[in-house]
Amino acid sequence: VGIEDLSYDQIADVNKVFVSRIRDLKNDSRFKYILIFRNYGQRAGAVIPHPHSQLIATPITPKRVMEELRGARRYYSFRSRCVFCDMMSEESEAKERVVYENSQFLSFCPYASRFPFEIWIVPKIHASDFENIEESAMFELADVLKATLQKLKKALNEPDYNFILHTAPVRHSRNGSWATIDKEFHWHIEIMPRITYVAGFEWGTGFYKNPTPPEEAAKYLRKMDVL
Amino acid sequence: VGIEDLSYDQIADVNKVFVSRIRDLKNDSRFKYILIFRNYGQRAGAVIPHPHSQLIATPITPKRVMEELRGARRYYSFRSRCVFCDMMSEESEAKERVVYENSQFLSFCPYASRFPFEIWIVPKIHASDFENIEESAMFELADVLKATLQKLKKALNEPDYNFILHTAPVRHSRNGSWATIDKEFHWHIEIMPRITYVAGFEWGTGFYKNPTPPEEAAKYLRKMDVL
Repeated sequence: VGIEDLSYDQIADVNKVFVSRIRDLKNDSRFKYILIFRNYGQRAGAVIPHPHSQLIATPITPKRVMEELRGARRYYSFRSRCVFCDMMSEESEAKERVVYENSQFLSFCPYASRFPFEIWIVPKIHASDFENIEESAMFELADVLKATLQKLKKALNEPDYNFILHTAPVRHSRNGSWATIDKEFHWHIEIMPRITYVAGFEWGTGFYKNPTPPEEAAKYLRKMDVL
Repeated sequence: VGIEDLSYDQIADVNKVFVSRIRDLKNDSRFKYILIFRNYGQRAGAVIPHPHSQLIATPITPKRVMEELRGARRYYSFRSRCVFCDMMSEESEAKERVVYENSQFLSFCPYASRFPFEIWIVPKIHASDFENIEESAMFELADVLKATLQKLKKALNEPDYNFILHTAPVRHSRNGSWATIDKEFHWHIEIMPRITYVAGFEWGTGFYKNPTPPEEAAKYLRKMDVL
């Protein structure tokens, strides 16, 4: 059983817990980042079998988060636009990598997917911090999660996966390098099925070889009838 | 069967092939980096069962290589010494993380091991480029590889692992940012047993949780009688 098997209301409840935990932990000045993730299945590192998510608050901004923020900033300083907003408008137009969408969210296989069937879920309206999500978007978020994860489950016969919420770091002050994050960064969810193993090439380079083009993965996922 | 089951002469022959392939490929101006690695076992991403290594030459310097070079440079600019040389003199003195050593190489579990039983093999004399290894060091390299990998095999019942040669990038010119790499960087081998799974925390942060202290891993590996 995964989160996709819960009802819309139950999925929304899980997301509301994330929101309330993040809001509360942000008040603690020791924390710089609040990471929410889900490991599904053994190959994704899960050690307990029932559906569960994890939250880890860190006293520094993680390396990977910094890299993503820096990348977003580089794009913003060049184009004066959010890279995720631009990515979504290209994906909406091209359509070939789209997995599912509703009025508030787009789910797609990114152009430079690192893994077969990698999927990102991105809110259509620019927002840097997940916990500022409107109450009215909660049902749409539950819907996009349920549809996307059920498609993935059906397409790959219940694959193991990692699910990671990418949201902006805690800003105890809005000065200095944190001043413009609101405009540069866009929260989103990354879903990484664990159907191939990370090997020496990936460890040695930080580059990823992916045998499945995202267009093919998305086409296959779109065909899956779910809900 | 792994490389550790070959004779000293056979292991030296494998390493000589690496040297000659690197020397040859360096003449091709398209290549910026030559990566040599070995995936042992399914969890390390191996798809063919017989012992084998892989070489991939890349037209750009890989992200992970750049990070390691930048880290080495930062240390060098601060201390005017090679970080790997300093690491080795500390490890030789502390002894508690040493796995094996001979006249030319030190094998140890690094202080900040990312994975249980992670092991680095480092030449005792400073050298940035693997392919400049002296003919006379070839036997000692075969010896440290055989001893270290046999200890690992015995300790963990033949674990899957990734083996990655970290050497300096190809410098077609010695100007600019490549001018001082010879002094800053120190070639070495990283061995990463795949006994835990990389999970959401690692993917989301770039940080690694390791349940096995390197001191305990090294102590256990030292005890293994091999050869």
